Amino acid sequence: MIKTPYYLIDKAALLKNLEKIAYVRQQSGAKSLLALKCFATWSVFDLMQDYMDGTTSSSLYEVKLGKTKFKGETHAYSVAYSDDEITEVLDHSDKIIFNSIGQFNRFKEASKNKTRGLRVNPQVSTSEFLIADPARPFSRLGEWDPEKIETVINDISGFMFHNNCENNSFERFDEMLNLIEERFGHLIQQVKWVSLGGGIHFTGDDYPIDKFCQRLKAFSEKYDIQVYLEPGEASITKSTTLEVTVLDTLFNGKNLAVVDSSIEAHMLDLLIYRENAKMAPCDGEHEYMICGKSCLAGDIFGEFKFDKTLQVGDRLSFQDAAGYTMVKKNWFNGVKMPSIAIRQLDGSIELVREFGYNDFEQNLS
Amino acid sequence: MIKTPYYLIDKAALLKNLEKIAYVRQQSGAKSLLALKCFATWSVFDLMQDYMDGTTSSSLYEVKLGKTKFKGETHAYSVAYSDDEITEVLDHSDKIIFNSIGQFNRFKEASKNKTRGLRVNPQVSTSEFLIADPARPFSRLGEWDPEKIETVINDISGFMFHNNCENNSFERFDEMLNLIEERFGHLIQQVKWVSLGGGIHFTGDDYPIDKFCQRLKAFSEKYDIQVYLEPGEASITKSTTLEVTVLDTLFNGKNLAVVDSSIEAHMLDLLIYRENAKMAPCDGEHEYMICGKSCLAGDIFGEFKFDKTLQVGDRLSFQDAAGYTMVKKNWFNGVKMPSIAIRQLDGSIELVREFGYNDFEQNLS
Repeated sequence: MIKTPYYLIDKAALLKNLEKIAYVRQQSGAKSLLALKCFATWSVFDLMQDYMDGTTSSSLYEVKLGKTKFKGETHAYSVAYSDDEITEVLDHSDKIIFNSIGQFNRFKEASKNKTRGLRVNPQVSTSEFLIADPARPFSRLGEWDPEKIETVINDISGFMFHNNCENNSFERFDEMLNLIEERFGHLIQQVKWVSLGGGIHFTGDDYPIDKFCQRLKAFSEKYDIQVYLEPGEASITKSTTLEVTVLDTLFNGKNLAVVDSSIEAHMLDLLIYRENAKMAPCDGEHEYMICGKSCLAGDIFGEFKFDKTLQVGDRLSFQDAAGYTMVKKNWFNGVKMPSIAIRQLDGSIELVREFGYNDFEQNLS
Repeated sequence: MIKTPYYLIDKAALLKNLEKIAYVRQQSGAKSLLALKCFATWSVFDLMQDYMDGTTSSSLYEVKLGKTKFKGETHAYSVAYSDDEITEVLDHSDKIIFNSIGQFNRFKEASKNKTRGLRVNPQVSTSEFLIADPARPFSRLGEWDPEKIETVINDISGFMFHNNCENNSFERFDEMLNLIEERFGHLIQQVKWVSLGGGIHFTGDDYPIDKFCQRLKAFSEKYDIQVYLEPGEASITKSTTLEVTVLDTLFNGKNLAVVDSSIEAHMLDLLIYRENAKMAPCDGEHEYMICGKSCLAGDIFGEFKFDKTLQVGDRLSFQDAAGYTMVKKNWFNGVKMPSIAIRQLDGSIELVREFGYNDFEQNLS
């Protein structure tokens, strides 16, 4: 039996998303590239690469991972590259998308034989969080002035717009794409490809996927462009749990249970965005606040309702723990880093990575 | 020349804190244990262990690091230990402090030959942040009911109170210690040692260190106890910078500069607590918003005033970057993890750890 804590990736659950992604390509022609910033656990790339068209990246290391571990296309993007990494970035990518005209000019010569694009900021977005809003005031993410963009249009062949963020409304997506067309349509006409970025929850259960496909297809045909999507969360949603064990129970005005994990170390976004983990089922009569074992007072996964009272040794599974978790895990408090395990399509569970004291020690110096 | 980004620990600056810590021991008798949760970069333990009395910990891995890398006493504390780690914890510690009576009872037999203590929550604290406030409602951190605590008093020999948090007011510290005495004095009389935890900024420039020493000494003498402090930030404050390079400059309503680092990956608390980094000097005429290179819209170190316009290639140093930074660094976006370098007492700079693509890849699986 695998010791908790561990992330458990279920390939069958993953497959459900992947089949929808492949369906979108088939119906709309839009290619999907996995956004490694959200999920980069390469042990399941063998499955993912059969349904997706490649990867997109936010740094040299991510582009290298994408190129070496995932077949298909590899898009390079970064808010800023340094002089000493650009060669390696170009060597490991099929396209490079610059965040600014400044970066484009800096690496214009170095990248002259490459397919090149520019990130465009349409100054409208769907994020509910200012810290995650690419269209926030003074955003550094992409160029927004059509006249400035026009000055480099002959040297690039595509654009990347990334302004959706956990957007599960097709209407809102459509509305923003209309705005993009209004403001940048004359520029889009001059390029060969457009990436619409990530943050579109098109693999969700109730998402009107056919309308989405039609909209993408119409967009693609209108401008005669290849459309790309860069699903992160949409690729891996509901595929993974974080498996933990109850270490202690207390009553301090509420029933509390402490588990062998920590939001800060293992599910960081819960802390950054002050959100709760998901527990299922969660409709029993026994309510507990589930807490992490780090020293942080606010290391709280959330309050959940269980069928029975919790005991030391009980196993709990936090749902939907694939996106922005493993890529951000850290050694805060020296809490044991969760192992990574995969439930293969035949149902067998394979432990693919375990972290130990040595990893902790070597993470510092 | 060392490539940015890197954390640069200055031993001479560290020494200033350490000398104050040693002074407090000399004047008050209180022993200071480094809180590894804040700072665990063991390459400078050679210097630190000559001025401090040991380490305290929040987990098995931290206690092991403390025992193997830092001479003196090793305190074990954790919000919750698991059955399968308790033996190793006991093997690597001189004292064990349980967070709850439940945990104490669970490991009563296993720890019977050990010096044992209990964490007590005085239900009053100094944190300005709810998420960092150990006295928050329903806190899981420590026992708070004197009657319950009395039931185990014969099996323990000490208490840990940890309710200060970035507290730079001696008056507030004193006031809270008075409250602790009022509520728990009759229990303190029955033990041999008390740890007052960390979060007391007694190494700060204006801190009334002699008053502090007198108060500690009086407390120690009144109850005939050994007092411990567990300085984290106070041990390493102002000792370290994060060295970065400007990769791009933009004007989007404000002057922006993008550097080769990221608050989420390298100075996480800036993001969690929505705070700004520190830059010195910071009184020039040229104001810039300094941004990280991750994809996060809110990856912003802060707005600072420079003597001159910033250019690509310029070096910047974020001040006071030792506490809760290296211990939480992570691979978000695959941004290059900062190296760790030490300015030795003779002024020479030694690179002690560098992280590369392989570390990134092996952090996942």
